[in-house]
Amino acid sequence: MPDEAGLNDTILYVCTTCRAEGDTSETRAGTRLLAALREQATGAGAPRIEGVECLSVCKRPCTVAVASPGRWTYVYGDLDAEASARTILTGIGLYAGTSDGIVPWRERPEAFRKGVVARIPSFTNPTDTP
Amino acid sequence: MPDEAGLNDTILYVCTTCRAEGDTSETRAGTRLLAALREQATGAGAPRIEGVECLSVCKRPCTVAVASPGRWTYVYGDLDAEASARTILTGIGLYAGTSDGIVPWRERPEAFRKGVVARIPSFTNPTDTP
Repeated sequence: MPDEAGLNDTILYVCTTCRAEGDTSETRAGTRLLAALREQATGAGAPRIEGVECLSVCKRPCTVAVASPGRWTYVYGDLDAEASARTILTGIGLYAGTSDGIVPWRERPEAFRKGVVARIPSFTNPTDTP
Repeated sequence: MPDEAGLNDTILYVCTTCRAEGDTSETRAGTRLLAALREQATGAGAPRIEGVECLSVCKRPCTVAVASPGRWTYVYGDLDAEASARTILTGIGLYAGTSDGIVPWRERPEAFRKGVVARIPSFTNPTDTP
């Protein structure tokens, strides 16, 4: 189980400007995803959720990023506006349960394995390689 | 001109495992890019440069990321192992000269405009949108 402390200092960024291909809905897919996440992320075991105007991953909507002090930052794309919310929250829970943000590959939700866009080391936890 | 303070707290992450398509060199393209950057980034006006084992942007080698407290983090791909070093350092200098990391679009090097993979808000400078 993810610890609450891990989730309390974890931020989930959601691109609100992502527009799904061929989707002509007035409310953009990214904005709908943000609403779905906020609706489903309730109680103490929820990350902070922030809407962001463009994560610059425009070719792979919907897009989110997760960051936390001392942990790697991950960016994920190809997420469904409605169906992905529960999966994302599960994945973030696993992330928050680690010390460095690296969830073992096989334990990651399939949407995270396939949708990973980038990962960036923690600013406060250098991992320099020679 | 970028201020030195801006560069001193800026980190340039370089993926050392990036392998250029069709490149059979023993030393991977990402590792060559890291060497080129370290060679050219000299003096006070240089960011901290860290090699990283995989930024998870494997389809768009070479890849770098730039991060700094209070500024957006940017990830760039499609960079040439040898030819891009100077351009990257120029772009990082412009980044370090801003307060939030957002360089006006027209001022960005073309390699950054075309190669942007993702951007992530500063952890310490929330930018929530409704």
